Amino acid sequence: MNIFGQICPASDGVLHYMRFRYQGQISYGIGQDQQVYRLQGGLFENPRPVSGPIDIEDVEILCPCEPTKILAVGLNYANHMPDRPRPVNPELFFMPVSALLAPGGTIMIPPGTSQCEAEGEMVVVVGKKAKGVPVEKAGQYIFGVTCGNDVSARDWQRKDLQWWRAKGCDTFAPFGPVIATGLCYDDLLLTTRINGHICQQQRTSEMLFNACQILSFASQFVTLMPGDIIFTGTPGETYRIIPGDVVEVELEGVGVLRNIVA
Amino acid sequence: MNIFGQICPASDGVLHYMRFRYQGQISYGIGQDQQVYRLQGGLFENPRPVSGPIDIEDVEILCPCEPTKILAVGLNYANHMPDRPRPVNPELFFMPVSALLAPGGTIMIPPGTSQCEAEGEMVVVVGKKAKGVPVEKAGQYIFGVTCGNDVSARDWQRKDLQWWRAKGCDTFAPFGPVIATGLCYDDLLLTTRINGHICQQQRTSEMLFNACQILSFASQFVTLMPGDIIFTGTPGETYRIIPGDVVEVELEGVGVLRNIVA
Repeated sequence: MNIFGQICPASDGVLHYMRFRYQGQISYGIGQDQQVYRLQGGLFENPRPVSGPIDIEDVEILCPCEPTKILAVGLNYANHMPDRPRPVNPELFFMPVSALLAPGGTIMIPPGTSQCEAEGEMVVVVGKKAKGVPVEKAGQYIFGVTCGNDVSARDWQRKDLQWWRAKGCDTFAPFGPVIATGLCYDDLLLTTRINGHICQQQRTSEMLFNACQILSFASQFVTLMPGDIIFTGTPGETYRIIPGDVVEVELEGVGVLRNIVA
Repeated sequence: MNIFGQICPASDGVLHYMRFRYQGQISYGIGQDQQVYRLQGGLFENPRPVSGPIDIEDVEILCPCEPTKILAVGLNYANHMPDRPRPVNPELFFMPVSALLAPGGTIMIPPGTSQCEAEGEMVVVVGKKAKGVPVEKAGQYIFGVTCGNDVSARDWQRKDLQWWRAKGCDTFAPFGPVIATGLCYDDLLLTTRINGHICQQQRTSEMLFNACQILSFASQFVTLMPGDIIFTGTPGETYRIIPGDVVEVELEGVGVLRNIVA
């Protein structure tokens, strides 16, 4: 087991793309059977393997891509905020890229909040520049999916005019460990564990707006770039995290995103 | 007069940094007397002049820097939303970098909104990586200031859960034309004109939170990077813009940001 999380064994037609540091150099790679095959070039420009495999225990797993922006959806599972009316459109918001955190990285609870919570989510990775994409073509713009944790300071979320610090503080957007391509991302089991105890568990088929609907809607207003990511919302009840906790977000067919809280 | 806007004559101790395309190449430069002196290197790493001046009429003026993120402040002038309570802290939100628009660029009103408005603002440009900066040191992290227009779709601002598309659509964040250093940015005249008619005019001394207070507060939660920008809020009443309008935001000592609406 790698400290950064676990990568599922790849099944037929599924690839696990990752980004890692090895001997001081940052590369993209394909993970398979506890090994990484290094790729030449960017993730979205037909990368090709350049060398023999590296043992996955010898690399530092980084955020699996480098977004220019982060979108996220609120209220996307009916049982997350049952008192709120069902939204007419995906209810999006932005997080800053400074909030990104790699697998294994430490979630830092900032001073001044007394109610930080974990939100396990499926994260969609955009593969191609997208503007004004119709729903029926949106799948062509989705490169793959990974796990994410939309860490949320509930007191600030209630009190502030906008959710900027409730959702956007440094380390509040862990994602990874790999981007899985070839999965049926509209029906995957999503599980969040705090210190090993399951606190959220639901299938992505329960999302009010699915991945294609979200990407299509966002792209009507905002140009999405390769590597941009979309957090697709969290199910059910969420739980407080405190220093020392270990939070895991597992997405079926992808793996486990594991972070410690400080 | 350059189609992209006008640059004020620089006074003693004030420099006007700009970014431009000339003969296919993108460079930073210093504007002076209708000429540009090209700089070698990035804007924040002690750039130095490398060649004789170019006539400003021969260059395409671009966004004056390349932010990794955009912050903005709401409710920062008492007369902008007089019905709202005065905020305890700066009320921040994020815009995506895909919303940036260069001086002279066209503001595109997206389908579905019936009430797009201009918001003339002073924009602060961060000069150094900033985290947890106390107010009394915040000035050291401010590189300079420029003009910005926080274009806002009021109907979406009222209707959506968060302001993502109300404030974050493509072309909704014009800024420029130059970054002025050495100005007393806490007391500059800010003027917005639509088709030549003044519709907003107020001094930045009227801001509820000044540039240092905003930067310091933001940096308690979010790491600011060189080139990141902060829109500091809009004064008074704002007015609807429609296709064909010419919007100008003028900041004393900086110049005029001019954009057309389509």
